Amino acid sequence: MQISELSDRSGLTVQTIKFYIREGLLPKGSVVSATRAEYDHRHLERLRLISALREVGDLPVAAIQRIVEAIEDERVSMHELFGTAQYAIGPHVAAPYDPHWRAARQDVDALVRELGWTVGDRSPARDLLAHTFVALRRLGFPITLTDLRPYVKAAAEVADHEIGRVADGAPRVRTVHTLLVSTVLYEQVLTALHRLAQEDASARRFG
Amino acid sequence: MQISELSDRSGLTVQTIKFYIREGLLPKGSVVSATRAEYDHRHLERLRLISALREVGDLPVAAIQRIVEAIEDERVSMHELFGTAQYAIGPHVAAPYDPHWRAARQDVDALVRELGWTVGDRSPARDLLAHTFVALRRLGFPITLTDLRPYVKAAAEVADHEIGRVADGAPRVRTVHTLLVSTVLYEQVLTALHRLAQEDASARRFG
Repeated sequence: MQISELSDRSGLTVQTIKFYIREGLLPKGSVVSATRAEYDHRHLERLRLISALREVGDLPVAAIQRIVEAIEDERVSMHELFGTAQYAIGPHVAAPYDPHWRAARQDVDALVRELGWTVGDRSPARDLLAHTFVALRRLGFPITLTDLRPYVKAAAEVADHEIGRVADGAPRVRTVHTLLVSTVLYEQVLTALHRLAQEDASARRFG
Repeated sequence: MQISELSDRSGLTVQTIKFYIREGLLPKGSVVSATRAEYDHRHLERLRLISALREVGDLPVAAIQRIVEAIEDERVSMHELFGTAQYAIGPHVAAPYDPHWRAARQDVDALVRELGWTVGDRSPARDLLAHTFVALRRLGFPITLTDLRPYVKAAAEVADHEIGRVADGAPRVRTVHTLLVSTVLYEQVLTALHRLAQEDASARRFG
């Protein structure tokens, strides 16, 4: 297909597509003549991934570049590839390294060990959890494993479902795409459902 | 206690406390002399609630005003009170009222009916869920009840736990405080744990 059709089918302007090619996010088309290049379904799939990353993760071009490189490098395992993408989307919270934050971060590390979960030391989710622990304590809410248990169980069940949903032998770009959408958009689905379920549980108890 | 002690114990400046009194968020202290007023633990508890609402919900003064009025009006039931607070914290997404959005919102309403959940028509969580449905569809992910099922289950279990945790006969201000913190901060805990659990599930499957 020509760039105009690629533009129609991806919903992106020709200008945007050319920008992604210049930035190395999208391979050049195969040259047909001095003024024409041909694009195929791989270009379209890549553009859809880039759009998804921009839209749901609000990712800068440099982060998308890292993800795209990892997709293309077949030596990068699926697990590393997903890690690269997940770490890039963040959210990245500032770690103030004051005593409260250090204590909370140690609690997070101890929790991950106790759960026996395989999680990299540099996972931004460790900092995110430490950040909420600091906020909870400042508001006078002590954190115990008993309090956390239902959240751990819910998180593990949802994550197992999401990783289990990946089809064996699916193309890498498709798999990363699906996992990222699960991470960001289905996380919002979970938040919205949580609010709805709270209202229902409140109605049953207090209504 | 005097206003200086109230400031020390709440972590808020005297200026901020006086601002909250002027705005009607905090009752005046009892007048002891022309230049001194006495404050008690109720003032402190109220200030902690206001701080929590400002901090975790980033709520404007007018929204906090509505919550405080609902706490003081004993005719407002616990369920209505929690609804007032939950609706105030949002998040409130813009409803564009285009055909995609209307279809998504109808799907949300159908889902809530099918689940048999008691949820007000004006719950901002309905709009939030519709918003994510629109984004999922735009990215080419159809939404089915089968896909949603694990999220519904996780949300319901967490919400039941949170509402069940409220002690019978606890003071209204304490109960609202606890429920709001569950809503906002434990929701972030759930998000962080979800990311950690995903990495672990990916390690087990692909690592």
